[in-house]
Amino acid sequence: MALPLPQITWRQEVLPGDPALIRALAADSGFFRPDEVAVAQELADTRLAQGLASGYHFLFAQAAEGVLGYACYGPIACTLGSWDLYWIVVRPDQQGRGLGAELLARAEARAAAAGGRSMYVETSSRPLYDPTRRFYEARGYRVLAVLSQFYAPDDDKVIYGKRLDPPAA
Amino acid sequence: MALPLPQITWRQEVLPGDPALIRALAADSGFFRPDEVAVAQELADTRLAQGLASGYHFLFAQAAEGVLGYACYGPIACTLGSWDLYWIVVRPDQQGRGLGAELLARAEARAAAAGGRSMYVETSSRPLYDPTRRFYEARGYRVLAVLSQFYAPDDDKVIYGKRLDPPAA
Repeated sequence: MALPLPQITWRQEVLPGDPALIRALAADSGFFRPDEVAVAQELADTRLAQGLASGYHFLFAQAAEGVLGYACYGPIACTLGSWDLYWIVVRPDQQGRGLGAELLARAEARAAAAGGRSMYVETSSRPLYDPTRRFYEARGYRVLAVLSQFYAPDDDKVIYGKRLDPPAA
Repeated sequence: MALPLPQITWRQEVLPGDPALIRALAADSGFFRPDEVAVAQELADTRLAQGLASGYHFLFAQAAEGVLGYACYGPIACTLGSWDLYWIVVRPDQQGRGLGAELLARAEARAAAAGGRSMYVETSSRPLYDPTRRFYEARGYRVLAVLSQFYAPDDDKVIYGKRLDPPAA
């Protein structure tokens, strides 16, 4: 049995220390290259500089011992109701306890409440991301496209999408 | 027969007046909504502020009478050799003379010279964009994916891609 999660506060506000924290979380996860870690941090920097006009929404799983994971998502410019899930990262010592699923469900609900009709996620075809792809597939995401060799000569982009339930009245 | 194009200088540098010029070009084209016109201008603003680190490359078709059209394109972050064509806009009174094709060919060649392996373009399924889709299809772009209702309930996203020829040695 997985250990239960510690008590969590869900925080949407982005604080000045978050970009460095996100850099560490993404780097420690083992899933991202240095250039990808830099992009993860950049989104938080941009959010701090521009606020919600940046288009980047954050959700942090905050426990007494620190941030255990976060999601970054937002409306896609020039669309009516399409949202992107940019990142979900869970601290390695907290994985396998349902925290990623909880972050995803909460991001989807917030997007739907703000008028989102669909959520999109892009990920890689590489074996490293097999668990990532299974994670999304188990939560209602369907493969909409595979762009061959998009990330690199041996690395396709897989585009997933899911229709969001309208928010409860 | 189409009228020949005036003599053109191809300009890559972005000048302080370009964001306003781009806004006018995009608005006058009749192809873009106000929110899309704002994004077109934003890319030029970002390029002026950040230089090539912005990831936005520009190519302006400059004639004595002004800018006749432009392309905006660039490498996609976190990929090795995938480039995006963000915008091609040609002034309405200059359309039908091959200027769009020339902008596209020059953007592709510059991308390939910088290590680009593929160029991607995203456009809309709406009838307004029939000529746009025919334009890309006639120049070697293949439909890689159609994301249903991506832009709006009646407006799919069509993703095109083309492998780029390696630059001549």
